[in-house]
Amino acid sequence: MTYCVAISLDDGLVLTSDSRTNAGIDQVSTYSKMFTFETDPNRSLVLLSAGNLATTQYVAEQLKRDIRETQPRNLNTLSYLSDAADYVGEILSSRIRRHADNEASGFAPEATLILAGQIHGNPHQAFLIYPQGNHITTSQETPYLQIGESKYGKPVLDRFIRPHTSLADAATCALISMDSTMQSNVSVGPPIEVLIYRKDTFDVSKRYRFHAEHPYLIELRKAWGERLRQAFCEMPRFNEQ
Amino acid sequence: MTYCVAISLDDGLVLTSDSRTNAGIDQVSTYSKMFTFETDPNRSLVLLSAGNLATTQYVAEQLKRDIRETQPRNLNTLSYLSDAADYVGEILSSRIRRHADNEASGFAPEATLILAGQIHGNPHQAFLIYPQGNHITTSQETPYLQIGESKYGKPVLDRFIRPHTSLADAATCALISMDSTMQSNVSVGPPIEVLIYRKDTFDVSKRYRFHAEHPYLIELRKAWGERLRQAFCEMPRFNEQ
Repeated sequence: MTYCVAISLDDGLVLTSDSRTNAGIDQVSTYSKMFTFETDPNRSLVLLSAGNLATTQYVAEQLKRDIRETQPRNLNTLSYLSDAADYVGEILSSRIRRHADNEASGFAPEATLILAGQIHGNPHQAFLIYPQGNHITTSQETPYLQIGESKYGKPVLDRFIRPHTSLADAATCALISMDSTMQSNVSVGPPIEVLIYRKDTFDVSKRYRFHAEHPYLIELRKAWGERLRQAFCEMPRFNEQ
Repeated sequence: MTYCVAISLDDGLVLTSDSRTNAGIDQVSTYSKMFTFETDPNRSLVLLSAGNLATTQYVAEQLKRDIRETQPRNLNTLSYLSDAADYVGEILSSRIRRHADNEASGFAPEATLILAGQIHGNPHQAFLIYPQGNHITTSQETPYLQIGESKYGKPVLDRFIRPHTSLADAATCALISMDSTMQSNVSVGPPIEVLIYRKDTFDVSKRYRFHAEHPYLIELRKAWGERLRQAFCEMPRFNEQ
């Protein structure tokens, strides 16, 4: 399993991903699920991935290869982020369809992706790309996208993320959301990666990596747990009459 | 969808269920998912249900009919709650198997149940009964069982429910868990039912019903939201360096 979140704010983007991959319960390994690309200085694109590792590795590799081979259609040539999402979606869905005959056996080649970033002259955006290749973006009311194990970490995003939320606040919230998910699902695990993209900078170098014992992650987990316990103690009590 | 929780504590049981049923998004209705039975004064049994409404109505009706017809095997004759869970599981799984031929069409007759209560001479207990008829009970480490849409409401149970938690505290926590679930999944909805069973009383009359605008439910939701916002404001902030 996996958990990734992309938050699209007035000030830019906050992207978060875990790094645990498993093929069965006894085959667990660590892979980054956050990919950046050598794009030109006028664009910054980041891919987050959930699902079948063979599929997502293939897509990331193919995207890089198309850039290197300067194919007419690659992440550097498309003028709009939604066109780039279409292009990524085509690579993804055609790779999945190759395995259509094997699916009866329980084999699941599906993957879901998030493509986020900015192309000069356009606003920053995030797209969730489904295994079928179609995609959705965020809205004012729902300024975030999740892939993978999304339910445990959703309530905290719904409560605190608004378009005007600051990048630092959103990163804090994304880490709380990620930590709640790790507590409830052992197939989501560290290191946690966070990438903060400030709009119009075309700079994706603000990338942070939190291993399991990172002091900030531990401090945040402890503080959140304590405050929640306090909050629960202060709740109006159920009255049995 | 549905959300039900059974919490088994040192002092007794706290059972909670929502009341929304839907067959497709345009056919939504209200049905209680909490059933009590006319058992003898030495036993108290409660059933919570999630899944196909036709299946769960059949099971509840069959359990009542077996009591009324004084069948040799009914909820009043079995000496152990685990035997009662076996008996309920047999009725459930055989009803589901009747439809085995239709499942290819996407029709889902499955249901999952919780049987909770106490039989004189034995401790109070709760069992989660799977569509296959097998069942699990709680443990010291996991003193609760959930059926239906369980993920949104699980973190709060994990944080605050311990075997020594009081019945009133557990009922408060169950309502927060239920409210979090209702916020995130529209197919879980009021009225919310809560039944508090104090051990060795053999009294299941402490049953409460909270409609959407119930003052306590609104007060609890508001207080929890405010305290969480406060907590979030006090979190150590992500440092971009």
